[in-house]
Amino acid sequence: MAPATPTDGLRRVAMEAVTPEIDGGRFPAKRVVGETVVVEGDIFTDGQDALAAVLRYRHEAATRWIETPMAPLVNDRWRGEFPVTELGRYVFTIEAWVDHFETWSRQLAKRLAAGQDVRLELEVGARMIEETAARADGTTADSARLRELAKSLRIPNPHPAASPPTSPASGEVNGELTTLMRRYADRAQATTYAREVEVFVEPQKARFSTWYELFPRSTGPAGKHGTFKDVERLLPEIGRMGFDVLYLPPIHPIGRTHRKGANNKSAQPGEPGSPWAIGSEEGGHKAVNPELGTLADFRRLVKTAAGEGIDVALDIAFQCSPDHPYTREHPEWFKHRPDGSIQYAENPPKKYEDIYPFDFETEHWRGLWQELLSIVLYWAEQGVSVFRVDNPHTKPFAFWEWLIAELRRAHPEAILLSEAFTRPKVMYRLAKVGFSQSYTYFAWRNTAYELYQYFTELSQPPIRDFFRPNLWPNTPDILTEYLQTGGRPAFQARLILAATLGASYGIYGPPFEALEGRPREHGSEEYVDSEKYQLRNWKRDPSMSELVGIVNHIRRENPALQSDRGLRFHFTENEQLLAYSKSTPDNANVILTVVNVDPHHVQRGMVNLPLEELGIEIDRSYQAHELISGARYLWNGPRNFVEVNPQSMPGQIFRFRRRVRSEHDFEYFL
Amino acid sequence: MAPATPTDGLRRVAMEAVTPEIDGGRFPAKRVVGETVVVEGDIFTDGQDALAAVLRYRHEAATRWIETPMAPLVNDRWRGEFPVTELGRYVFTIEAWVDHFETWSRQLAKRLAAGQDVRLELEVGARMIEETAARADGTTADSARLRELAKSLRIPNPHPAASPPTSPASGEVNGELTTLMRRYADRAQATTYAREVEVFVEPQKARFSTWYELFPRSTGPAGKHGTFKDVERLLPEIGRMGFDVLYLPPIHPIGRTHRKGANNKSAQPGEPGSPWAIGSEEGGHKAVNPELGTLADFRRLVKTAAGEGIDVALDIAFQCSPDHPYTREHPEWFKHRPDGSIQYAENPPKKYEDIYPFDFETEHWRGLWQELLSIVLYWAEQGVSVFRVDNPHTKPFAFWEWLIAELRRAHPEAILLSEAFTRPKVMYRLAKVGFSQSYTYFAWRNTAYELYQYFTELSQPPIRDFFRPNLWPNTPDILTEYLQTGGRPAFQARLILAATLGASYGIYGPPFEALEGRPREHGSEEYVDSEKYQLRNWKRDPSMSELVGIVNHIRRENPALQSDRGLRFHFTENEQLLAYSKSTPDNANVILTVVNVDPHHVQRGMVNLPLEELGIEIDRSYQAHELISGARYLWNGPRNFVEVNPQSMPGQIFRFRRRVRSEHDFEYFL
Repeated sequence: MAPATPTDGLRRVAMEAVTPEIDGGRFPAKRVVGETVVVEGDIFTDGQDALAAVLRYRHEAATRWIETPMAPLVNDRWRGEFPVTELGRYVFTIEAWVDHFETWSRQLAKRLAAGQDVRLELEVGARMIEETAARADGTTADSARLRELAKSLRIPNPHPAASPPTSPASGEVNGELTTLMRRYADRAQATTYAREVEVFVEPQKARFSTWYELFPRSTGPAGKHGTFKDVERLLPEIGRMGFDVLYLPPIHPIGRTHRKGANNKSAQPGEPGSPWAIGSEEGGHKAVNPELGTLADFRRLVKTAAGEGIDVALDIAFQCSPDHPYTREHPEWFKHRPDGSIQYAENPPKKYEDIYPFDFETEHWRGLWQELLSIVLYWAEQGVSVFRVDNPHTKPFAFWEWLIAELRRAHPEAILLSEAFTRPKVMYRLAKVGFSQSYTYFAWRNTAYELYQYFTELSQPPIRDFFRPNLWPNTPDILTEYLQTGGRPAFQARLILAATLGASYGIYGPPFEALEGRPREHGSEEYVDSEKYQLRNWKRDPSMSELVGIVNHIRRENPALQSDRGLRFHFTENEQLLAYSKSTPDNANVILTVVNVDPHHVQRGMVNLPLEELGIEIDRSYQAHELISGARYLWNGPRNFVEVNPQSMPGQIFRFRRRVRSEHDFEYFL
Repeated sequence: MAPATPTDGLRRVAMEAVTPEIDGGRFPAKRVVGETVVVEGDIFTDGQDALAAVLRYRHEAATRWIETPMAPLVNDRWRGEFPVTELGRYVFTIEAWVDHFETWSRQLAKRLAAGQDVRLELEVGARMIEETAARADGTTADSARLRELAKSLRIPNPHPAASPPTSPASGEVNGELTTLMRRYADRAQATTYAREVEVFVEPQKARFSTWYELFPRSTGPAGKHGTFKDVERLLPEIGRMGFDVLYLPPIHPIGRTHRKGANNKSAQPGEPGSPWAIGSEEGGHKAVNPELGTLADFRRLVKTAAGEGIDVALDIAFQCSPDHPYTREHPEWFKHRPDGSIQYAENPPKKYEDIYPFDFETEHWRGLWQELLSIVLYWAEQGVSVFRVDNPHTKPFAFWEWLIAELRRAHPEAILLSEAFTRPKVMYRLAKVGFSQSYTYFAWRNTAYELYQYFTELSQPPIRDFFRPNLWPNTPDILTEYLQTGGRPAFQARLILAATLGASYGIYGPPFEALEGRPREHGSEEYVDSEKYQLRNWKRDPSMSELVGIVNHIRRENPALQSDRGLRFHFTENEQLLAYSKSTPDNANVILTVVNVDPHHVQRGMVNLPLEELGIEIDRSYQAHELISGARYLWNGPRNFVEVNPQSMPGQIFRFRRRVRSEHDFEYFL
C-alpha cells in the first residue's frame, strides 16, 4: 500500500523566527497604548517564485481580523507593523502565499529586456488575470476591469516582432493591475503561521513612570505618627518634582505578636512595627491601619493624587502577622509544625517570627488564590491601579499568571511592579507571566562596565519585549555601599543614571533627598534607624531635591528618555566615564548622558558618537546643550572632549541641536 | 462568581530554553549512532526550594521510557545526557519536581551549624520519610528501611542540647537515605516538559564521510565510453586514497530532444548529452543508461564497492528530458503552455529546453509524490543507501519532509546530501526537513576571515544540531576563481581546508587531481570542455593524488577530524593565515590546522593557542607533529611561530603530543 501523503502538500511557504514572540508563543509580548508592533519573520518558499505576505491582527474583543501587507527586507526576512490603540490583548498571525502573477510579471520584464518572443507568455498572463476576474465576480466592476486588462494583453498582430507589447505588458506591470491582482489573489494554498501570537497592551505609564516612595508614618508634624492627610499635603510638592507614582509600603493594620522595633530589635511598647507584618485584630489585607486614618481618608488621598497626575501605588505583600484574622479563620492556608504551631518565615538559620507565609502547596489552594485575588480587586475598586508586589518570587508562577490575568479582565489599566530581587531567570519568568515592570540589579551595577553589560542584556530581544526595568538607586532594604561611601556625588550620579537609563525609575525619596548613607552596621545594606521599624524626621537637602526636579523635568521634555528602545552605549576612552544615548525612532530627539561613576575624582575622556545613526550631519558643527546646567557646547565630528567633576556634578545630559548656524546661513550667502 | 482557577496550580516548576530543540520542537535534532545527546534546560521554581529533575528518553520503537538524572550547572541551568545506539527516531522529555526532602536536608545542615534546637525539624524530616515509606510499600525492604531511618531521627533524649542528633541527621543526609528518598519521591506535582523533543539518529557516515565524484563516462579505455565495469576497476585505488563514498552523476538513459553537446552547445550526433537530462525511449529514473551497462552491472558495482568500504551514492534529480516516458504517461505532472507544449525549465531569460521540471502544484501531486518516492525506494532496494539530491530547493519542503520520512521508515540507514546552492534560510530548512548533509558556501569562502565567519556560524547551536556541512572545493558546476588563478597551491590549500574544516568533504576527483583550472570562458565557473557534456581523458597529477591520500589517512587516524564539534579558531597575527583546531571532547586527540590562504606568497605568523582548553600543560614543552610532512616541532607556551610557503605546501596539520620528555623524565631525576 502506498504511504499516505499529507493533506497540505501544496502549501509551499515556510515561516520561521517570527518576532516578537516569547518562548514559542507561550507568553505575550508587551506594548503600551499608542505604540506600533513591528512584526518580522523569515518567510520563503522553494524555487524562485515571488511571495506575498500579510500580517493579520485583532484586539481580543474584536471578531474581525485586520490585514496589512508585509514587505521583504533582505535575506528572506519580511516586516509588517500594526498600531495598538486599546488596552488588553491583541493577537497577530501571518499569511503568505506564492504570488504567481508577481513571478510572471518579473519574468516578463526579463524576457522583454532580452528581446524574446513573449506571445505565449502574454497569453499565460491573460489567463491568470481571467481566473482572477472569475474569483472577483462578487464585485463586478473589478471583475469587468480585470477582463479588459486580460484582453489588452492579447496582441492581435500575428507578427510579434513588429508590434512590441503595449503597457501593462511593457515590463512594468504596475499600478492598477497589480493592485487588482493582489486584491483577489488566490490564497487557497496560502500558509498561515502556526500560531496566533499574543501582544498585551498596557497604559503608557507601564513604560514611562517616575516613582516616589515614602512611609506615611514619618509625614506627621513633630514626631507624631503621620496619616494619609499628612501625605495629601505633600502631593503638590511631589508632583512639582515630576513624580507620577507615589508608592506607599503596606497600609494595613500591623501585628503585635513578635513585633519588630527600632533597628530590627524586639519592639518596645509604642513602637509602630514593620508595615509588612500585616494583620491584627483590627483587620487584614483589606483594612487600613487606624494610625494612618480611615478608608475614606485613603480614597481621598488617591483622588487628590490623581488630580496632580499621580497614581498612588499600593504594596501587595501576601503574608501575615501572627495576629492576622486569616490565621484563625483559615489555618488551612498555612503550614503547621509538628507541635501544631504555624510555620513562620525563615531563611535558615534566619527566622522571621513576625511573618507567616502562605502555604501555596495547601490542598486548599483554590480558596487561597481566590481570596488573594479578592484583595487586589478590592483595592482596584478603591481606585488603585498601580501595585508594587512584594517578593512575588516566593509564590508560584502559575498563581501570578492567573491572578494578573483575572485582575486585568476587570481592570485592564492595572500596572504591577515585581519586587523580586532573585536569580535572573526567576525575575524574567515573573515578567513573562504578566508583571508590567520589574525591579532590577541596577542598585548593584556601579562600574561603567557593569552598567554597560547589564543594560545591553536588558535591551536585547526577546528580553526587551517582556521585561520592563524600573531602576531604584535605593529602597528601604537597599542602601548600597556605593551610596554609603560616595557622598553627594554618588547620590547625584545614581539619580542621573536611573533617570536616563530607565524609562521607569524611582527613589525611596526622603532619605535619598537627605543624602542618608549610614548603614545599620558595617557591611550591611540596611539603613540605620530604618523607617521600616520607626518614625523618622528627614532633613532633605534642598539642592538634591532640586536636582531630582530638574532631572524629572528633562525626562518629561524629552521623549527619547520615555522608552527603553533606542539605547546605545558609546566608547569614552576612559573606563570611569559611561556614555550612552537614547533617541526616538526618527532621531527627532537625541539625548546623550555622560556619567562619571568615580565619585572621588575628575575624569576626562572623548565621547565617540556614531553621528549618522543619531541623525547628525557629519560635516557640520552641532550644538550639545547640557540640560542640567544649561551650558551649550559646540561639537564637531564624532569625537568630542568631556570633563566631569563629581564635586560640581557627576553627570551631564546633552540634547543635540543638529543645525548650528554658520556664515552660510546669512542671507549674504544664500 | 469566582473566576476559575487552573487545574495545575500546584505544579511549581518552570522549564525553558531546552536544547537541543529545533524551532520549538518542530524539527528533530540530528545525531549518529554511538553519540551522546546532551540535554540542557533552564529549570527553576519560586522560592528557595531544592529541585530534582530527570531526563526521560526512548527510541520510537520502544514503549518504555528510560530515566536518567539531570544535574544543576549554574544559573538554573540543568544538564543530563543519554546515549543513542539505534538508527531512527528518539524522543526525550524532562520531568522535574520540588524536592522537599532535599530542601529540608540542606536547611537542617544550616540550622545545626548555627547551633539551633532542631527537635521539631527532625520530627518534620521523620514524617517526610514515613510518608515516603508509605509510597514505597510495594517493595517492603525499602519501606521497612525507611521507617527505621525515620525512627532514628526521633531523639529519645528530652534535652536536645545535651544530645547532638546522630547521623544521618548530622547535616550529612547522604548515601542510603538520599537514594531511597529520591527513588520514591512524590512526583504528584511534578512538571513534565511541554513537548516530547525528537532526535533523529543516522549512521556514523552521516557525520563523517569522504566523497569522490566521477563521471563513469570518462573511465573507459582510450576515448571509449566508460561503463560500470570500468568504474569497478577503479575502486581499489579510490579506497586506497581513503574515500568511502563514490558519487556518480545520474546513471539513467539520456534524452535526445534538445540534447546538449560539448561546452553546452547543441549536441552533434554521437555526443553523450548531459546525464541530468534524464529519460529516453530506453526508460526513465528506474532505468540504466545502456552505455554504462546493465542493472546487474550496477548492482555488482555497488556490491564490490561495499567490499572496499565504499558506498556508491546515486544522484536523485527529479526532472525529465522531453523524451522521458513520464511526459507521455503522466502529462498531468507537468505544466503546460498555452500552445499545449510542456513548459521547459528556465530562469528567464535563460532557457533549458532539454529539461522539463515537474509541476509540484499539479492537482495530481499525490500521484507524483508516490512515484518519486518509488524511485528512491527502487534504488534503495538495489543496495544504494547514499543519495545526492540535485536541486532540492526547487521542490516543496513538505515534499522532502514526507519523502525522507517514508524512505527512512523502510531504510533508516539512508543518507541524503542536499545539493542546494541557494539562500541560507532555504538551505537550512532543507536540513531541518531531513537531509543528512548539505553542500555549503565553502567553495566561495576563500579568505581567512570569510572562512572564520562562515564556520563560526555553522558551529553555533541550533544550526550545528540540524545542518551537517559537506565541503566541496570543486564540483562539475563549480570551478572557483580561486582554483582558476591559484595554481597547485590553491588546490592543495582547498583540499586541506575542506578535509580538516569538515567532518564530511568531497572532491570532483579527476579534474581536481589533474589540477584542472581552465574555465569555459573568462568570468565563468564552468569547466572548459565540461565532462557534463562530453568524455574527458584526465591526466591526474601524482603528487596531488598522493596528498589526497595522505590527508584522508590523517582524517581516519584522528577522531577530532571526524566531527564538526570542537572546532575553535585561533588568532595568527596574520590575516592570510587561518588557524583552527578540532579536538575530541576529552582532548585525547587535538589537531591544529594552519593554512596560508594566499597561494602566491610565503606567510609567517604566531599561532595563539588556548592551551588549557586544549588540555595542554602550560608549563611544559609540547610536540607539534606536522602530519603531512612528518616534521616534529617543539613548542612552548601559547604563542608559537609558523611559516607557510605555498610553493612547498600551503597547509600544515599538527597533532599535539602533549608530553615531551625532559631531563626530569630520566630515572636520574625520579
